[in-house]
Amino acid sequence: MQFSSQLLESAVNAFAKLPGIGKKTALRLVLHLLKQEESQVNEFSEVVADMRKNIRFCSRCFNIADTEICTICRSPSRKKEMICVVETIREVIAIESTQQFNGVYHVLGGIISPLDGIGPDQLTIEALENRVKDGSVDELIFALSPTIQGDTTIYYIQKKLQQQNLKITTIARGISFGGELEYADEMTLARSLQNRQPLDHYVSR
Amino acid sequence: MQFSSQLLESAVNAFAKLPGIGKKTALRLVLHLLKQEESQVNEFSEVVADMRKNIRFCSRCFNIADTEICTICRSPSRKKEMICVVETIREVIAIESTQQFNGVYHVLGGIISPLDGIGPDQLTIEALENRVKDGSVDELIFALSPTIQGDTTIYYIQKKLQQQNLKITTIARGISFGGELEYADEMTLARSLQNRQPLDHYVSR
Repeated sequence: MQFSSQLLESAVNAFAKLPGIGKKTALRLVLHLLKQEESQVNEFSEVVADMRKNIRFCSRCFNIADTEICTICRSPSRKKEMICVVETIREVIAIESTQQFNGVYHVLGGIISPLDGIGPDQLTIEALENRVKDGSVDELIFALSPTIQGDTTIYYIQKKLQQQNLKITTIARGISFGGELEYADEMTLARSLQNRQPLDHYVSR
Repeated sequence: MQFSSQLLESAVNAFAKLPGIGKKTALRLVLHLLKQEESQVNEFSEVVADMRKNIRFCSRCFNIADTEICTICRSPSRKKEMICVVETIREVIAIESTQQFNGVYHVLGGIISPLDGIGPDQLTIEALENRVKDGSVDELIFALSPTIQGDTTIYYIQKKLQQQNLKITTIARGISFGGELEYADEMTLARSLQNRQPLDHYVSR
């Protein structure tokens, strides 16, 4: 692409560095911003810089927070004895959006994946151990990727914590609600059969 | 979507206001920026604000410029007697990217479209008249949308300028290079037949 303006080119290149944004999309976004009021564009620019500068990670659960402790950990209505262990804050946002979980979280920052050079030390596993040690936690619910790495991570953490009197569960895997059996992959279908549930349980939901 | 951080939510909402960016994509972009160094995010933010603040429109051709007159109008190697008339700076960028045109441009800012409330006065037609008046321009090449509005705009400008001794052309419409006849729409195919070209012309290209 040939630009007659250095300013335009820099802005397009900045947007094109974002994941999934190519040059053409970047140009479309920049031309959109160019049509907005200067104050609106300044607001956009400030919000982005401000976010990066001031956001921090909750010192307890490593969720994103505006303060030392995140709003979920601080909330008196959340059950502190039930911790849902997730990989990233994306899963926190996804689970929060269901409005069905009233425990707290622990964000690992990834899963154990030796091929990618990610060992237990790169994750917040030690912090999780410390949260559990004082006996105030009853249940750990693992909501990790259904992959070998995810299962390894669960196994590793479970081994570490086996001294504790803890209920350890994982979220249910199975056919999606509304999903068609014939299109489900074999692994999902097989696990879904193994973990079949009594009908009264199904109806009571 | 439920966020536990106001800063995160504001940033996601700012991105989600951009055209074609939904909440999920916005979240992906923001989480990407969150992983970058603070200095890089500040640079992104500054480049965007700087672009909006300092970019201007060339006072001659209304192309985007960093200075009073754009680099194309200022270039001594461009033929000032040949003006390509386009709707927006997008077309300038597209044509410049072909590196096949060495005239100059005139950006109308749109086309005459009474239904959208766009009349000749909202466009830079008067400025185009002034550029042509002194007799220094030989040819106007129209590269507008092949729509009724585009044709109306060409007709209107041509009427206005008929006193001038000007060659007026439009870019060729036809079947795209590599395009298949059977998939071309009837209008394009019909025009492409009407405007058929002698073989020697075709070969010489």
